[in-house]
Amino acid sequence: MSEHIIGIILNGVTGRMGARQHLERSIVAIMKDGGILLPSGNRIVIDPLLVGRNPNKLRQLAETYGIPKWTTDLDCALSDPNYQIYFDSQTTALRVPALTKAINAGKHVYCEKPVALDLSSALELAKLARIRGVKNGVVQDKLFLPGFRKLRRVIDSEELGRLLAVRADFGYWVFERGDEGGLQRPSWNYRREDGGGIILDMFCHWRYLLDNLFGNVISVCCIGAIHIPERYDEFDRKYQCTAEDAAYALFQLEGNVIAQFNSSWATRVRREDLFVLQVDGTDGSAVATLRDCWVQPSSATPRAIWDPDSPHREDYFSGWLLLPDRAKPDNAFRLQWEMFIKHVVADTPFPWDLLEGAKGVQLAELAMLSWRERRWIDVPPLNEF
Amino acid sequence: MSEHIIGIILNGVTGRMGARQHLERSIVAIMKDGGILLPSGNRIVIDPLLVGRNPNKLRQLAETYGIPKWTTDLDCALSDPNYQIYFDSQTTALRVPALTKAINAGKHVYCEKPVALDLSSALELAKLARIRGVKNGVVQDKLFLPGFRKLRRVIDSEELGRLLAVRADFGYWVFERGDEGGLQRPSWNYRREDGGGIILDMFCHWRYLLDNLFGNVISVCCIGAIHIPERYDEFDRKYQCTAEDAAYALFQLEGNVIAQFNSSWATRVRREDLFVLQVDGTDGSAVATLRDCWVQPSSATPRAIWDPDSPHREDYFSGWLLLPDRAKPDNAFRLQWEMFIKHVVADTPFPWDLLEGAKGVQLAELAMLSWRERRWIDVPPLNEF
Amino acid sequence: MSEHIIGIILNGVTGRMGARQHLERSIVAIMKDGGILLPSGNRIVIDPLLVGRNPNKLRQLAETYGIPKWTTDLDCALSDPNYQIYFDSQTTALRVPALTKAINAGKHVYCEKPVALDLSSALELAKLARIRGVKNGVVQDKLFLPGFRKLRRVIDSEELGRLLAVRADFGYWVFERGDEGGLQRPSWNYRREDGGGIILDMFCHWRYLLDNLFGNVISVCCIGAIHIPERYDEFDRKYQCTAEDAAYALFQLEGNVIAQFNSSWATRVRREDLFVLQVDGTDGSAVATLRDCWVQPSSATPRAIWDPDSPHREDYFSGWLLLPDRAKPDNAFRLQWEMFIKHVVADTPFPWDLLEGAKGVQLAELAMLSWRERRWIDVPPLNEF
Amino acid sequence: MSEHIIGIILNGVTGRMGARQHLERSIVAIMKDGGILLPSGNRIVIDPLLVGRNPNKLRQLAETYGIPKWTTDLDCALSDPNYQIYFDSQTTALRVPALTKAINAGKHVYCEKPVALDLSSALELAKLARIRGVKNGVVQDKLFLPGFRKLRRVIDSEELGRLLAVRADFGYWVFERGDEGGLQRPSWNYRREDGGGIILDMFCHWRYLLDNLFGNVISVCCIGAIHIPERYDEFDRKYQCTAEDAAYALFQLEGNVIAQFNSSWATRVRREDLFVLQVDGTDGSAVATLRDCWVQPSSATPRAIWDPDSPHREDYFSGWLLLPDRAKPDNAFRLQWEMFIKHVVADTPFPWDLLEGAKGVQLAELAMLSWRERRWIDVPPLNEF
Repeated sequence: MSEHIIGIILNGVTGRMGARQHLERSIVAIMKDGGILLPSGNRIVIDPLLVGRNPNKLRQLAETYGIPKWTTDLDCALSDPNYQIYFDSQTTALRVPALTKAINAGKHVYCEKPVALDLSSALELAKLARIRGVKNGVVQDKLFLPGFRKLRRVIDSEELGRLLAVRADFGYWVFERGDEGGLQRPSWNYRREDGGGIILDMFCHWRYLLDNLFGNVISVCCIGAIHIPERYDEFDRKYQCTAEDAAYALFQLEGNVIAQFNSSWATRVRREDLFVLQVDGTDGSAVATLRDCWVQPSSATPRAIWDPDSPHREDYFSGWLLLPDRAKPDNAFRLQWEMFIKHVVADTPFPWDLLEGAKGVQLAELAMLSWRERRWIDVPPLNEF
Repeated sequence: MSEHIIGIILNGVTGRMGARQHLERSIVAIMKDGGILLPSGNRIVIDPLLVGRNPNKLRQLAETYGIPKWTTDLDCALSDPNYQIYFDSQTTALRVPALTKAINAGKHVYCEKPVALDLSSALELAKLARIRGVKNGVVQDKLFLPGFRKLRRVIDSEELGRLLAVRADFGYWVFERGDEGGLQRPSWNYRREDGGGIILDMFCHWRYLLDNLFGNVISVCCIGAIHIPERYDEFDRKYQCTAEDAAYALFQLEGNVIAQFNSSWATRVRREDLFVLQVDGTDGSAVATLRDCWVQPSSATPRAIWDPDSPHREDYFSGWLLLPDRAKPDNAFRLQWEMFIKHVVADTPFPWDLLEGAKGVQLAELAMLSWRERRWIDVPPLNEF
Repeated sequence: MSEHIIGIILNGVTGRMGARQHLERSIVAIMKDGGILLPSGNRIVIDPLLVGRNPNKLRQLAETYGIPKWTTDLDCALSDPNYQIYFDSQTTALRVPALTKAINAGKHVYCEKPVALDLSSALELAKLARIRGVKNGVVQDKLFLPGFRKLRRVIDSEELGRLLAVRADFGYWVFERGDEGGLQRPSWNYRREDGGGIILDMFCHWRYLLDNLFGNVISVCCIGAIHIPERYDEFDRKYQCTAEDAAYALFQLEGNVIAQFNSSWATRVRREDLFVLQVDGTDGSAVATLRDCWVQPSSATPRAIWDPDSPHREDYFSGWLLLPDRAKPDNAFRLQWEMFIKHVVADTPFPWDLLEGAKGVQLAELAMLSWRERRWIDVPPLNEF
Repeated sequence: MSEHIIGIILNGVTGRMGARQHLERSIVAIMKDGGILLPSGNRIVIDPLLVGRNPNKLRQLAETYGIPKWTTDLDCALSDPNYQIYFDSQTTALRVPALTKAINAGKHVYCEKPVALDLSSALELAKLARIRGVKNGVVQDKLFLPGFRKLRRVIDSEELGRLLAVRADFGYWVFERGDEGGLQRPSWNYRREDGGGIILDMFCHWRYLLDNLFGNVISVCCIGAIHIPERYDEFDRKYQCTAEDAAYALFQLEGNVIAQFNSSWATRVRREDLFVLQVDGTDGSAVATLRDCWVQPSSATPRAIWDPDSPHREDYFSGWLLLPDRAKPDNAFRLQWEMFIKHVVADTPFPWDLLEGAKGVQLAELAMLSWRERRWIDVPPLNEF
């Protein structure tokens, strides 16, 4: 049994999400478990190198997680042949230049979404990676959440019959000011000029969820809103919000499925989770949250009674079956990390490449266009370029 | 104290909804309670006359509810000066001719929605009533449901601050076949040629709810679908569905409010009721069902935590406050009936006239146009004609 | 709209079950509802004639239910052309002679199970009815129980996939002595010489349940037992039990389904109901009782954990979904009565004829043979005779 | 007070069940508690030696549990006089040769069930052990589970009166593929050629449970089935199942008791536990699961009511009394281990020897014969050989 050491440059894991999901719960967790076991019996061991702009933050992360190597010099890191993978979770605006460098340096690349601020840059990147022959991948974590893996199990079982419609509610209240516990989200999220806006942020997710679970997106109609026009930034300074904090969208999918998605940072949550999605099919329906999934087969569908005068209230939650966990669910980011690393080392399949990532940017771009032009916009295929 | 007898012609209460809501729970219930007491201390007593096409059904209804008079001859009924009000809950296609006759006979008219199959007929009718000087009204029952009356109380209190967005889910599963308990809805509901379709049926309701509670509708974008293409009729014969059984719509309202409404007869219900509406405002949010209303003021809004890895699940239902009933809630139809009768007898205000009814038909018509043209359609004002 | 009067001779409804299920909850209940409405709009009205051996009991029943006509003279009743249907729920030993007379008198016949004490008599009867051209039917009430109608709905929906196995537990404790509330069952049930025994009583039911719901029975293996050898009769006299009070059976069904049925009057009940049946399929399982039905689809099947040391106990009941009633369930006997009467009057289909009834007797007979010979016995088809 | 050191060779505890039950929860747990205290006040201390074929697994087990000695050389281990006991939990096919060697080397032997793949080998082994004069035992863990120890307490108290019948349901759904959490059971379990099949696996257990608790088995009738014909193995390769995954059996026991046992890996669980057994007696009934036991004495037996029309549902679970734990229940395997070690060291009684183990193999063998010949097979006594 042999060990295969893979060097990974981690750029931009100093942010809250990067540090928690990608570093602590993915890379460090894999390292603690002794790496990744291949079917051959061989083991992949990770050698991480932290890269960032703030040396203090890097030093602290390195200490916290016992990682020996870090640097603020990205070029130097990219020139080190011991590191075969470059990972990027910087803010979106910095992603394209850094990934371009990494690809040109011959690194396999993995990155957060959105891949780029616009579709043409995202496609350029995918093209470059293809030309240079490096493996590439984009984080599509929602697919790996326990609730959505169970939903996929249900859809694959064909228990729902022909799919009819999907309805999703995503969102929560992001307070205008970071009184207690600090800001919930960075202020640039609410400024268009800084790459903010809920459409660019979330429609990347909606694209791969829709394409992978229900049918390829063929058309989009969207309206955005800046519900909260003024907020307070990291230094408690009032600023004007220039990017939408909510978007209301309709999608047409292949197979005559209609999807309706609400995304809002200005809504209060009265549902099972921050993201809840229902899909109705001819033979049954399913409701998924981040962690859970319920089903109601046709045979268990009650005959609805419209009688507001009756003192008796039907309990419409009770006719649904909560699907069990069949194993302790792994972290969604870690699952995709392991798949990407195996893809690089053992050449196992990994469908979520830069082109797939570009599709997310495309949907966000077309949704913005739909908003401006107040009409449905068709989504052309990206498969050929 | 004197009694004022008002004669009311009830045409088309032989159907399930008409018999139950308008006859049993409104007219008969008012009669049992001794009529309507006016602030003057005088009492309005009802003298009903049932009109319909099926004498067996009329006889049975008359017997069941102890109503002495019924006839199949509408003209004769309209020529009787003892009856000042004509009420119509026939199928939509028959409404305009019957109301026209009644108005021309000098009757005050009250009717079910939709007022007409198309906007121009609805406007003609409103015009005729104005010219003839008869009082007129259209059923807008959802406004009088306990849940929506509480919601109005909340909105009027300004507890929610500036309104931002409205989201509503209406629908349930209508079985393809009437195996047990018969068909849930008549088969014509699913045939365009017979005046069916969920848009014409429900958008009349959405219009007055939106206009009255949140802001006048200024624009609509809608897509419909025939999710279930074949159903079985009252005689268990298979038929093709030609009218949409679901509609997904976005609305822009005055005051920069966005509304998103799902309406479907092909969905399974996992929520508090068959119709659930949430409105978010800067200072709070409210969720209304047919009977209930919950609020979450800004001060009680939790800081959302996105952590699918945690075994602990937040209960996002618990942070909402159920509003109490301040009195045993009356039937919604009866409440509006009493208002219309007082309007006729005592000239109290009654804002929901035929012009308001025409607005519902207008919204349905423009939603259909939006679906065909795949774009947003503005809703012009109807106030002048 | 016309009325069709059908005369029905009811012989043997003086017993507890006959009086309650056939008279009170079927015939009298139909009469109270004004008869049976045909799709043509015509109405079938019942004219019952009670027949029995005990005039006191007959008089009392007639008074209780307001039935004007009764007699102890069967021959006289059978000669009256106003009565087209003869119904028999006498004790089994009396059934064949009475039915033979009725068929020869040209009556349509309907009767309780078992049709006869042995297969050849049952077949003779079926043959005679065919020759005489009278319509005929046998009570198969379990098929019409709410729980089993829901189970049929599930099986017909194909939600369970390919069926694998059926397991059923029927029974309860029949006290040896009728201390309080009298005997639970008549003493002849426990004497072979009087037509007793749980096999003849219950395997008639198992036959039509298996054939109709899961697959035709092709083989049976059975062992009986007299668990309680002495009991006390209606006069509190001790007697020897000569007929089995329990039977343990295995069946092979068409489609490679295996069924295992326990039937016992000497067991204590720790389950949802007196009769509980589970069917497992590749895509899901269902559990039915007299009134209820639960399902567990494949997607909701938990991964079982065998860990008796853990203090945590899995709740294996929670992963099942209770199917809703879609209408208030009707009495099972009444439903079949209405079908038989419509079959006679309007010639609608009625598959449960005397030949089907004979199949029940056949299965009981072969189960007894299997017990004696200690081996599996194949069940030959009865369709040709 | 002196210490007696007993050396135990543990062969085949690298499998999941061996490692968890025999090593961790029995041997290691006893060692942690300082060994076994004899009534004499002396203490038995265990000196374990791990034997297996995979040195990596052995090393890892040794490290995990702090066991200093392990080897892959069985012969060498058997020649070491410091080890008096040989324990075997290898796969069944390897058991007989290894035990034969151990007995010939003069070791006392203890082993998992089934003792052998066929009865004659099992008997040979028992004979050899008698001739060589070594003590011997076979794991019969179900007897020591908390639920069955309580059941024994109930039976021994004679509260149930004369026993009438036993009914048992064992099983759960074994997924065709090891998607999440890996395979639930090794693939050889489903291949006849590899010693698989639920009959050989489980009827060993049913034999000692029946013999010890209710009466010696005198006859068996059994039918097996391969409900799921294709599964996926440890490397996710599809394979044909050649061994039965379900068996439906009837047993006759001494004392006129009838037992009926279902065993299935293709059933979904709607009952208290993965294994549930009910025994009915003249004076009461008991239901046992792995951990629990409930009783219903005759005095508490309700009078059953058959009334599916009533909206009220009887709760047939409430009339049973849950028996209390009188002490924190010990692990079933550990309890039997302690008894065997005391048997070796202090010559205390231990009735579950190789001959008893052979009886389990015998029952499995005759059940297979019964399935082939479609008839009851008598079970001859094995006591003389």
